[in-house]
Amino acid sequence: MATELQQLTDALRTFAKDRNWEPFHSPKNLASALSVEAAELLEHFQWLTEAQSRSLPPDKRAEVGAEMADVLLYLLQLADKLGIDLIDAARSKMRVNASKYPVPPAGAGNPGG
Amino acid sequence: MATELQQLTDALRTFAKDRNWEPFHSPKNLASALSVEAAELLEHFQWLTEAQSRSLPPDKRAEVGAEMADVLLYLLQLADKLGIDLIDAARSKMRVNASKYPVPPAGAGNPGG
Amino acid sequence: MATELQQLTDALRTFAKDRNWEPFHSPKNLASALSVEAAELLEHFQWLTEAQSRSLPPDKRAEVGAEMADVLLYLLQLADKLGIDLIDAARSKMRVNASKYPVPPAGAGNPGG
Amino acid sequence: MATELQQLTDALRTFAKDRNWEPFHSPKNLASALSVEAAELLEHFQWLTEAQSRSLPPDKRAEVGAEMADVLLYLLQLADKLGIDLIDAARSKMRVNASKYPVPPAGAGNPGG
Repeated sequence: MATELQQLTDALRTFAKDRNWEPFHSPKNLASALSVEAAELLEHFQWLTEAQSRSLPPDKRAEVGAEMADVLLYLLQLADKLGIDLIDAARSKMRVNASKYPVPPAGAGNPGG
Repeated sequence: MATELQQLTDALRTFAKDRNWEPFHSPKNLASALSVEAAELLEHFQWLTEAQSRSLPPDKRAEVGAEMADVLLYLLQLADKLGIDLIDAARSKMRVNASKYPVPPAGAGNPGG
Repeated sequence: MATELQQLTDALRTFAKDRNWEPFHSPKNLASALSVEAAELLEHFQWLTEAQSRSLPPDKRAEVGAEMADVLLYLLQLADKLGIDLIDAARSKMRVNASKYPVPPAGAGNPGG
Repeated sequence: MATELQQLTDALRTFAKDRNWEPFHSPKNLASALSVEAAELLEHFQWLTEAQSRSLPPDKRAEVGAEMADVLLYLLQLADKLGIDLIDAARSKMRVNASKYPVPPAGAGNPGG
């Protein structure tokens, strides 16, 4: 896996260990926490128009970045607990998506990936 | 950002462009899609005990890995649209968490990170 | 509580009992399941424009209604487990919202309730 | 629909109208807001064991009730916008679930409803 992701994963492991959080960090609980963080991210966008969401003011953008970081940090912790290589999984999923949604000859598509 | 994440981001950009999905991929919509994928991940764990979630059978583990990949792929696309460096954001958030949750002198803690 | 909601609650209790689902139906698990159903509801809207979401075709509207029913059914089961009267809780929350968001003298507002 | 639910729906309609929130309350946005509230509900349970979730202290129980109220209030507003009768939809879904999950002859089941 990418060096930066591995470094973050190692730091997260130490962080949880130092705080005795390991008993709480079952994959079930980490998946809940990840889902809650994804909703906190969504909350920033819920009353915006799509156009507004494309041009966030800098302070809002920073808040959104912090929520995205929370999602990534739980994703890394869950991957670590389950022994999943996120980069491999993502590459594999992109190959699945490429078969599932072939490039159209022309015209508009239907989003999915 | 990590080379692997940048490569995935570039591939996702091409993927969406080839399928004319860019009009659908407003940050508002990508945040919704990410949240939906996080819930699909959670769905695999909702009726399991915490103990069961710690020892998934291999086929379930592979399904969970594919859902985690979906979360990462939307996270990368959202970061790309907003010009956010996910690795920087994650490191920054870990520093915030370190101040917010100091290492306790001893005994069990309250999870948060 | 409303007679119809009480009848649904009673039917759900019998339904779970007949299938030996009670051990799975901890409040923690029901809250997860509710959240997953809410995401399945959201999934129907994630690539639509707001305008499109205001005029769903009949078949899509029926699918959305079925997802909303799932959310309500888990909400009723969770309320039953916790001994919460949903109608009382909703009325109480509306009073809180009325103080939190006073009617503006004029002009556009900021949604929250 | 149940009288109490209809009264709540009417009150919510007036509440949103008085605050000029109608332009924000597209079904797409209401579905996002509902999903966010469902996650705030889940957040109360994410680090609890299932056993702890079955015996919440009174103050936590009150907070959970307020989050459940938020979910119901958005569900009612979405149903109102889409012209969906929630009670009818819930009864219909229960009939679907009864065919999908027949009562087992004996022994433990697999939760789904």
